[in-house]
Amino acid sequence: MALTFLPYHARLLGDAEIADILGEKADLAAMLAFEVALARVEASHGLIDAKDAAAIGTSLGQFAPDMARLTQATLRDGVPVPDLVAQMREAIGGNAASALHFGATTQDVIDTALALKLKPVFAMLQRRFELVDSCLADLIERFGDRPLMARSRMQAAIVIDVGDRLLVWRKAVVQLAAALPAMADRLLILSLAGAAGTAEKFGDRIDPVRASLATELGLAVPSYVPHTDRDRIADFASFLSRITGALGKMGMDIALMAQNGVDQIELSGGGGSSAMPHKRNPVLAEVLVTLARYNAIQVACLHQALVHEQERSGSAWTLEWLILPQMIEAATTALSHAAALLASVERIGEAG
Amino acid sequence: MALTFLPYHARLLGDAEIADILGEKADLAAMLAFEVALARVEASHGLIDAKDAAAIGTSLGQFAPDMARLTQATLRDGVPVPDLVAQMREAIGGNAASALHFGATTQDVIDTALALKLKPVFAMLQRRFELVDSCLADLIERFGDRPLMARSRMQAAIVIDVGDRLLVWRKAVVQLAAALPAMADRLLILSLAGAAGTAEKFGDRIDPVRASLATELGLAVPSYVPHTDRDRIADFASFLSRITGALGKMGMDIALMAQNGVDQIELSGGGGSSAMPHKRNPVLAEVLVTLARYNAIQVACLHQALVHEQERSGSAWTLEWLILPQMIEAATTALSHAAALLASVERIGEAG
Amino acid sequence: MALTFLPYHARLLGDAEIADILGEKADLAAMLAFEVALARVEASHGLIDAKDAAAIGTSLGQFAPDMARLTQATLRDGVPVPDLVAQMREAIGGNAASALHFGATTQDVIDTALALKLKPVFAMLQRRFELVDSCLADLIERFGDRPLMARSRMQAAIVIDVGDRLLVWRKAVVQLAAALPAMADRLLILSLAGAAGTAEKFGDRIDPVRASLATELGLAVPSYVPHTDRDRIADFASFLSRITGALGKMGMDIALMAQNGVDQIELSGGGGSSAMPHKRNPVLAEVLVTLARYNAIQVACLHQALVHEQERSGSAWTLEWLILPQMIEAATTALSHAAALLASVERIGEAG
Amino acid sequence: MALTFLPYHARLLGDAEIADILGEKADLAAMLAFEVALARVEASHGLIDAKDAAAIGTSLGQFAPDMARLTQATLRDGVPVPDLVAQMREAIGGNAASALHFGATTQDVIDTALALKLKPVFAMLQRRFELVDSCLADLIERFGDRPLMARSRMQAAIVIDVGDRLLVWRKAVVQLAAALPAMADRLLILSLAGAAGTAEKFGDRIDPVRASLATELGLAVPSYVPHTDRDRIADFASFLSRITGALGKMGMDIALMAQNGVDQIELSGGGGSSAMPHKRNPVLAEVLVTLARYNAIQVACLHQALVHEQERSGSAWTLEWLILPQMIEAATTALSHAAALLASVERIGEAG
Repeated sequence: MALTFLPYHARLLGDAEIADILGEKADLAAMLAFEVALARVEASHGLIDAKDAAAIGTSLGQFAPDMARLTQATLRDGVPVPDLVAQMREAIGGNAASALHFGATTQDVIDTALALKLKPVFAMLQRRFELVDSCLADLIERFGDRPLMARSRMQAAIVIDVGDRLLVWRKAVVQLAAALPAMADRLLILSLAGAAGTAEKFGDRIDPVRASLATELGLAVPSYVPHTDRDRIADFASFLSRITGALGKMGMDIALMAQNGVDQIELSGGGGSSAMPHKRNPVLAEVLVTLARYNAIQVACLHQALVHEQERSGSAWTLEWLILPQMIEAATTALSHAAALLASVERIGEAG
Repeated sequence: MALTFLPYHARLLGDAEIADILGEKADLAAMLAFEVALARVEASHGLIDAKDAAAIGTSLGQFAPDMARLTQATLRDGVPVPDLVAQMREAIGGNAASALHFGATTQDVIDTALALKLKPVFAMLQRRFELVDSCLADLIERFGDRPLMARSRMQAAIVIDVGDRLLVWRKAVVQLAAALPAMADRLLILSLAGAAGTAEKFGDRIDPVRASLATELGLAVPSYVPHTDRDRIADFASFLSRITGALGKMGMDIALMAQNGVDQIELSGGGGSSAMPHKRNPVLAEVLVTLARYNAIQVACLHQALVHEQERSGSAWTLEWLILPQMIEAATTALSHAAALLASVERIGEAG
Repeated sequence: MALTFLPYHARLLGDAEIADILGEKADLAAMLAFEVALARVEASHGLIDAKDAAAIGTSLGQFAPDMARLTQATLRDGVPVPDLVAQMREAIGGNAASALHFGATTQDVIDTALALKLKPVFAMLQRRFELVDSCLADLIERFGDRPLMARSRMQAAIVIDVGDRLLVWRKAVVQLAAALPAMADRLLILSLAGAAGTAEKFGDRIDPVRASLATELGLAVPSYVPHTDRDRIADFASFLSRITGALGKMGMDIALMAQNGVDQIELSGGGGSSAMPHKRNPVLAEVLVTLARYNAIQVACLHQALVHEQERSGSAWTLEWLILPQMIEAATTALSHAAALLASVERIGEAG
Repeated sequence: MALTFLPYHARLLGDAEIADILGEKADLAAMLAFEVALARVEASHGLIDAKDAAAIGTSLGQFAPDMARLTQATLRDGVPVPDLVAQMREAIGGNAASALHFGATTQDVIDTALALKLKPVFAMLQRRFELVDSCLADLIERFGDRPLMARSRMQAAIVIDVGDRLLVWRKAVVQLAAALPAMADRLLILSLAGAAGTAEKFGDRIDPVRASLATELGLAVPSYVPHTDRDRIADFASFLSRITGALGKMGMDIALMAQNGVDQIELSGGGGSSAMPHKRNPVLAEVLVTLARYNAIQVACLHQALVHEQERSGSAWTLEWLILPQMIEAATTALSHAAALLASVERIGEAG
């Protein structure tokens, strides 16, 4: 569902950096890294021949799939992996070809590739949390002591300090940033469990193989079979929506403060209108609300995917691919917009 | 939210035809068509100079915007129109430049452009409904008389005819196809209402101007101000989800019928597995369920956007752009997959 | 999911009138009416003995089920009907007992009972639409000519008339009211299709039996098998959400107009605060937004239930019971609050 | 939205135990406990007179509000607290009346009362997790070694042990149970922050007052202002949906296993049909799927409520009351049904 995205929305509603992290190149590189590392580790544990593993590493060094064929095969198979592995095997040739992908299944490849792609996502979230936090610290420093009419249920309540409201915004961000490492720990895991989650081709060697492969890839080994237990995905989706939600609250506050007649904030820049050039619209504040409402809905979709039947659900798993990247992009975009919006504040607090 | 779409999912989860209909080129062409037709109509009603209208038509014949500038401006303004109009005016020059976009506002341009893009969407939906219907008619013809064990609450119930179940699938499609023209009537409307919905620049001439412009563009004139009344969008979203829902029910039935041990259907093709080459997975049937669950959630997002405050809501309106094209693509993709899936049926009914 | 509703929320978030319409008594009466009318009609068409039909009518005149037993049986069966029919048969006794419910299935009872309960719901919606409409007409009469600063993207735009905004609110209501009769036609239908939707016990007589029974019950006969085609439910859910959405837009506008500093509306009454007795909170306006956001989400749940597998889905159907009555109550409550809110307006338009 | 709940669904879709925990009596008791403890603590810190605190404790010992008046006032105020406090003050009389509720605001009362009611909820969740876990342990013990045809994408894959699948179900439950204490820590917090979150009536004494009051009530003091930061609610909603999701996956697996032709499980009991008495429907398995899909949607509603504007949002906060109790009830009901369903298993694994 993406061909229909309008390119001039790319900066308003998207995040170029995330395209590099989650896009085609990164995905292919991650799947390739999984297969090459798997062969190397399996060779070191005596499951495949060391020469085959070496041939695999060498042959796939320059591997680039036939994308048209891969796209067509994905329509047939529901996943790119069977054809991708077939294309890899054609590139490798000989005995080594059949050693590739030993004991693994499609889901091992895709789920591990997801974890590999999420590593830079978590690093990026961390950096952007810090950026927003420092913007808020700066505003507290500059305007924290000024008076602000608090408002409850849309009505003037009592006068508070600007810093009181800014601290609420900041605590929300700090709190989520503090939860980030534990969330990363849940998501940055290896999937190696074979056709039906029992790693039946590995026998007794599955534990050491998993340990080696995880080390090689910079991931952890979970204490459960990750194929059909999508709890970590649902949890992460909720986390992403909590990020956009916290920033959406901030955006809504700013849009309300910027109203003529309320005038509790002054922003530099501000969007223009084709009919009313005098207006300065709080565009980024509004977009923060949009992204909050967007992610708040999408989380429901990933929770529907918890009903992941039997040993692998085509329908539930596919749903994840339609939602999770978009939720990540909404969250990173919101963080970036929040920082820009806060940096554009020229005054917070009652005017005059 | 679209940079992160993986290209090898393009045929499984997307629809190339819709990209031409809803994509950048079509969107720019629609916005251009609005501005040129508006100038022509306004000239014919004496609102702008006929020479200016002619100059606008001529100058914009080959107009192509600076996309990098437009993308940057969209981040600032929240919409592409102010900068697009500015770029158009630069291309036109002279007095005619200021005659462009007379009396219109950004939302008139974007909402009318949406209507123009939806014309081929409705035509495409119509064709695909007919295709699915004829596939179903064909299956009823071939297998309608065979016995089928009906199942309720996942348990065998009584023996019915294959045709009984196929008629349920077919009626659902027929019913939606029958509702299509009225839905198109609601959506294929002109928006021309100016800065705050009052068409204040047009005075008494607004009705004839609207009538002429609508005729020119092949749209209807609604009996209400379309800026903040998003009911038609919410209704259309529901309709799109009802399409994917009807096909999702069919997909779920087929996936259940295809189970080993149930064996009520035989499909040619079927997806392969990287670990179990013997399997034939009912991939398209599963994807129909995925798309049904996807759209069922997205409809909630467009219904949230009904709370469209005052004379124009940046946050609610923006939400529509993140959801509606994706819902359309999900629906057209589902119709196309349904036809392919039905065409692949080699047997329906109890085996043997 | 209802035991946890707090009783002091009954008027803020609920609608006593709807309890009579959709509650236990009405539901039992509707199921009883179905069974008695079915017997009478079946007798008139020679499917059961006329004496049995008479005995059924007489015996069930005073029938009241053992509720504890029914509740326990519903846990076992997933539906109340099997035990309800058993209790009815015990009340009837003799040969007539086995003539009861001839050819019908649980879903016929429940779906037809739903249609019977929806009749007064549609009448109530109609009345409340008219009430809101007349409140709006009255406000247009009283304040339509006054000036109002229009606001787009939360910023002052240009001055319009109060009537311009009120007309937007009113058109939204009028439009939905106009769509009500067609919606009622879709929902007020008979379900009589037997165990697997094929009415296998009726043979050739099914059409006249359906016609007679529908006439008897004041319902229509649909052109499709209504058991697994839940399109009408999804469509109605969307309609209910469109009602709350239109009123939520109005509520949001009023809450924004009531802000100190904006002061575009004055309301009598208004909620008090435990800490700030001076405040007058626009409570009903806020609740309209709440109900809009509530229904906008619930519609997704009923659209998920479109994936209604095979000849009857326990899981999808049950989902409807958890959502549809609540959505109806949200809509009728919102209409009632909207009328009260509009009636409390003492001024609309710029102050002074 | 609860008057419309049908009483014979009480055991199928509800949980009587939760009514005691979250219902009217418990809610009133919790609000009363807050006010009495607040007075006592404030007296001990010299903020109100010790005699007044004693009078408050004594007078409210037998306090029961006029419920009709409270319901009416809640419609006006949007919350029960202002009138409840007024009724309490009338019961107390004299000087002590005005000492009641000193420095607190409505949200302090309601949010703290929620925390008090959640204490037994967490205890109940803990007990039910243990029950489901022990049922699963028992099944693993009894059937773990039997063969089971694994299924991926609805198709037979390879033979695994019954224990392999049961371990997947069990790990999901164990994992959520392990996350329960941290979740409880987030939710079981005191709210005491006054009209606009600044505790302006307490001056320097706010920290010791909060510490004493939290101790008195068995709650913790959060490091942030809990009024508008609803992150903990959104997180808890996600957790509740993850519970129903994990059990929904189990329910879906069991419903699929119970299909005629698949026959991988045998259940005692099972629901009857009014038309087909021979059937044994896997009712509880289906209801687990229903509750999973229900909560998966509701979580979106509570995430919408993260956009909680300014110092208090009437509309966002009210949304929580319509959703959170229902989600809790869905989760506790699902746990209870899961245990009953697992206890009814007479065989798992391939037949014969």
